[in-house]
Amino acid sequence: MKIMVNGNAYEFENGKNALDIAGEIDKELKKSALAAKVNGVVTDLAAAINEDAEVEFLTAADPEGLRVLRHTASHVLAQAVKNLRPDAKLAIGPAIDNGFYYDFDVDEPFTTDFIAAVEKEMAKIVKKNSRVERFELSREEALELMKDEPYKIELINDLPEGETISFYKQEGFTDLCAGPHLPSTGKVKAVKIMSIAGAYWRGSEKNKMLQRIYATAFATKEELDAYVAAREDALKRDHNKLGRELEYFTTVDSIGQGLPILLPKGARTIQLLQRWVEDTEQKAGYLLTKTPLMAKRDLYRISGHWDHYLDGMFILGDPYDETKECFALRPMTCPFQYQVYLNRQRSYRELPMRLGETSTLFRNEDSGEMHGLIRVRQFTISEGHLVLRPDQLEEEFKGCLELAKYMLGTVGMLDKCTFRFSQWDPENPKNKYEGTREQWETAQAVMKQILDDLDVKYEIGIDEAAFYGPKLDIQFHNVFGKEDTIVTIQIDMLLAEKFGMYYIDENGEKKLPYIIHRTSLGCYERTLAYLIETYAGALPTWMAPEQVRILSVTDRAADYAIDLKNKLSALGFRAEADVTGNKIGKKIRDAQIEKIPYMLIVGDRDMADGTVSVRHRAEGDLGAMSFDAFSALLKEVVDNKEKK
Amino acid sequence: MKIMVNGNAYEFENGKNALDIAGEIDKELKKSALAAKVNGVVTDLAAAINEDAEVEFLTAADPEGLRVLRHTASHVLAQAVKNLRPDAKLAIGPAIDNGFYYDFDVDEPFTTDFIAAVEKEMAKIVKKNSRVERFELSREEALELMKDEPYKIELINDLPEGETISFYKQEGFTDLCAGPHLPSTGKVKAVKIMSIAGAYWRGSEKNKMLQRIYATAFATKEELDAYVAAREDALKRDHNKLGRELEYFTTVDSIGQGLPILLPKGARTIQLLQRWVEDTEQKAGYLLTKTPLMAKRDLYRISGHWDHYLDGMFILGDPYDETKECFALRPMTCPFQYQVYLNRQRSYRELPMRLGETSTLFRNEDSGEMHGLIRVRQFTISEGHLVLRPDQLEEEFKGCLELAKYMLGTVGMLDKCTFRFSQWDPENPKNKYEGTREQWETAQAVMKQILDDLDVKYEIGIDEAAFYGPKLDIQFHNVFGKEDTIVTIQIDMLLAEKFGMYYIDENGEKKLPYIIHRTSLGCYERTLAYLIETYAGALPTWMAPEQVRILSVTDRAADYAIDLKNKLSALGFRAEADVTGNKIGKKIRDAQIEKIPYMLIVGDRDMADGTVSVRHRAEGDLGAMSFDAFSALLKEVVDNKEKK
Repeated sequence: MKIMVNGNAYEFENGKNALDIAGEIDKELKKSALAAKVNGVVTDLAAAINEDAEVEFLTAADPEGLRVLRHTASHVLAQAVKNLRPDAKLAIGPAIDNGFYYDFDVDEPFTTDFIAAVEKEMAKIVKKNSRVERFELSREEALELMKDEPYKIELINDLPEGETISFYKQEGFTDLCAGPHLPSTGKVKAVKIMSIAGAYWRGSEKNKMLQRIYATAFATKEELDAYVAAREDALKRDHNKLGRELEYFTTVDSIGQGLPILLPKGARTIQLLQRWVEDTEQKAGYLLTKTPLMAKRDLYRISGHWDHYLDGMFILGDPYDETKECFALRPMTCPFQYQVYLNRQRSYRELPMRLGETSTLFRNEDSGEMHGLIRVRQFTISEGHLVLRPDQLEEEFKGCLELAKYMLGTVGMLDKCTFRFSQWDPENPKNKYEGTREQWETAQAVMKQILDDLDVKYEIGIDEAAFYGPKLDIQFHNVFGKEDTIVTIQIDMLLAEKFGMYYIDENGEKKLPYIIHRTSLGCYERTLAYLIETYAGALPTWMAPEQVRILSVTDRAADYAIDLKNKLSALGFRAEADVTGNKIGKKIRDAQIEKIPYMLIVGDRDMADGTVSVRHRAEGDLGAMSFDAFSALLKEVVDNKEKK
Repeated sequence: MKIMVNGNAYEFENGKNALDIAGEIDKELKKSALAAKVNGVVTDLAAAINEDAEVEFLTAADPEGLRVLRHTASHVLAQAVKNLRPDAKLAIGPAIDNGFYYDFDVDEPFTTDFIAAVEKEMAKIVKKNSRVERFELSREEALELMKDEPYKIELINDLPEGETISFYKQEGFTDLCAGPHLPSTGKVKAVKIMSIAGAYWRGSEKNKMLQRIYATAFATKEELDAYVAAREDALKRDHNKLGRELEYFTTVDSIGQGLPILLPKGARTIQLLQRWVEDTEQKAGYLLTKTPLMAKRDLYRISGHWDHYLDGMFILGDPYDETKECFALRPMTCPFQYQVYLNRQRSYRELPMRLGETSTLFRNEDSGEMHGLIRVRQFTISEGHLVLRPDQLEEEFKGCLELAKYMLGTVGMLDKCTFRFSQWDPENPKNKYEGTREQWETAQAVMKQILDDLDVKYEIGIDEAAFYGPKLDIQFHNVFGKEDTIVTIQIDMLLAEKFGMYYIDENGEKKLPYIIHRTSLGCYERTLAYLIETYAGALPTWMAPEQVRILSVTDRAADYAIDLKNKLSALGFRAEADVTGNKIGKKIRDAQIEKIPYMLIVGDRDMADGTVSVRHRAEGDLGAMSFDAFSALLKEVVDNKEKK
């Protein structure tokens, strides 16, 4: 048979497996290979190949290869647990983002000592490097083999008629599994248990609570160590922990999931960001609008949200009762902001019309999906729409991209961003997208041209467009490596017509404009979360809710401290005075823990000299200086939006 | 019988009527009296008095007296119409705020010529000064008398069994009416028809459309003329007309009633007001919060809104289905902002804690009630809650009052405000109010003491309190004389306990704080409406969306104009340049119509001299001056928040 690898053709006897093929091509490849993609399907290296095929070898550098390694690692974990606790019943053990887990039904919860023993046992199993073998059974045979594993019995019984029932076996351990897997346990080079949690069988609270062991695995110890270190750092930065500790936000059961309460520090930072965004957009020629947060279903019928987004909206009233008024909270600003354009007839001279709004939006998502300030049901964002003549499209798109890059750069998030060109799915456009194939092809061609002209490096996301047009999404990668869209710039050739948005051109003729939908910083709640994580809570001085704390060394200096606070406040800085009876060491520690950028430590000497002793939370002691010198220093740091 | 008038006792024979009594006491009183309050009941002057009574004479200076005059005027109107169009069928004709109306069923709509004829006919009837006589009939007799008036027949049939059926008659005209009325038509000194409109019988669109004549009446021609002039002025200032023309806001059918769209000018003025309020409150020691716009029903159950305010809220989901999550949009901020206080245990040292939020609220009111920016379903307001130790109550209440007075004074609305002490109804407290009689009496006594200490002149409103406590309402009187609450300051002794809001006092003991609920400027939408009406659209420079327009006299001056605009923008002013080819006269007219505060008219001479020719929309030509001199003038007007 003919085997194509990396564009080279090889001839091998029928039935040879990918592992042996790799060995014949390149010994190093045999060592690093974890799985093979045979004619596009990820497969065991040990599986015999019986026909001409294109083979791609997957290593730990490929997400799909790493996934196979982790899947085998989950079997190693299950084997280790069974070796130590033969009474444990097996549930399921998939690979997940960043690792894998396995659920067990045990009478007694796992102890930390037991977990340490499991890790040792796993190391033994890996060292033995046993072969991992696949075999298939009939339903009857499968049920017989698994007769002591009630969860496996349930899974087998749930398999549809005619489905292949496969197992993987290493040493004395066998598990029901579709695979694929590594050829031997020795390739699981580096594995580590991360945490234990309770988890309901099949995710339903009606079922029994099982014990879940979360773990991860890599092809090398170096990669595992780097991951563990990064994760420890990420956990320290986690906004959902740090943001609560620093009193930026909280959540409350009686209000609900995904509806965070911004405490004074969070509200203040968002106020500062919001004013900066509004002012920056105003300078960039945007007109501010303020439109309602809800509308009758009639509006969403025109925009298409009623057809394409009903499940994502909060409805006030019965959506199917046409005899009564029915409102919905808005999931997007578009159809509202268009009404501003529609207020009167527009001339070509008025274009581009750039409309911007600090807009609160609502998305009806599941409680289970909610997370801190990142996954929320209500959020506020600077949403804008630019109504354009066709000849203005490229320049205005560029303006939107530059504005977003300026904003993300200024807050210090741009270097963790990538670009994604989200397109429709030309294979399956039905029901999900409005407009004709020709309109989509035109819009995407225009957008590609613009992105190429602007030299934007992007990935392509198929079937990720908005229902009315393609998008450029700016993706932010958070401390856990998770990716979210933070900013989006979209080209829309459809909605203007639906809403009857025309302009009168030079010749007095009615023309349809283009529309750009865009954001510039992302929603404030999520941005605050990312900023807390990026700066580990030590927000840059210009956006810090409290910029300066004046610490009196003695009671004698209290009035001097309060006077300094008042002078800083009068200059527009956010200052507080700590004139409690606490020792100066504690006052400094408190300010450090609260991540206050600047501390002014004032005692008798400072009072006599009219100076302040300046300390920065990261730079440490900056020495004594006059009040004027300090306020000039502070002004420069704030005015330049320095990242400290 | 003994008759008490103004504290004086008189003796009259039984059966004498109030009109004759007035004549015997004071001839002038007989002339000016319109009705009498006999033992507290408003009564015809012509009605015989048959027992000892306290009598108060009502003149046109009393709202109740004026109402009687207008009610009789409506009969005069109906008589005039019947005299001219005997086929017109009579519906109803009540006195209303500012006048009265009468509804007629006629085959042909009223023409303006006909209306003029009706006014003449009314003058004749008034001049004749016919006696107005009351009589009563049995139901059978009443139906016989009114057999040609189908609407009256319907009204008589709807009267409950045993109800007195009374009529009033003047000359040949008789109307079914409960009264009271003037003793004769001559007392309707000054009457004027204001407008005609269609109106459904009994307000239901299922019924026939009738013709309604709106009119007004006064005791003197001078008062009528003053009213008509004020109304013409008010109509010119009406924000619902002017605010749309000046492009401050609009409304759209597909979005819905009571959900105005703030166009760029309206959004900008509200942004300016909002930032000023937030900054002023921050200086007054408020901490900014940002809490969710919706919550699960659980929260409203604790606060009492679920019991006392369910009909006023927008509900997401079925409020009665306890098996599913049910959210409601917030009608007030209180239970949300309390969560900020509840975030951790609080010490007496942290009090007063003043929390402020630019808060969007939702009220589920009828479409029919909606009006421009004043009656809306969604609005944004600076809502704050102060959590206090009891010893801080008076000082903090005073601080709230002073803050509100400062804000209302600065925007120029305070001189049209009055104060209203809104109390519960001690006679009928059931279901509407929380807490015990003792708690209410204490809260109201505390509030009365504070108001007296602060020398606040107030009216008392019974049964107008919040469900949790008494209020000081600041009432604004708009250009039509209509009164609305613009600011409220409330004392709450109940909700802290419901929410478990304690503080630890000096002795380490848990104590319940007082809470003040307060606003400082009123909701921004309504405030904008009142400002448009107060200034007839010419908002003071500091809050005007566009402060300066630079008008080029010739094309040669266009670059100079744009340069001036940029210089003003760089200084933080809101300037635009009109460099179109239009004549300077038109440019000035446009700027005047748009009520732009300052115009800089620049031509060749200004370019050569480096000057600007300044014009103010109200003050007119201010002469040529250097750019620096103008920007200094502008800065002073803005910084001082001058009312021009």
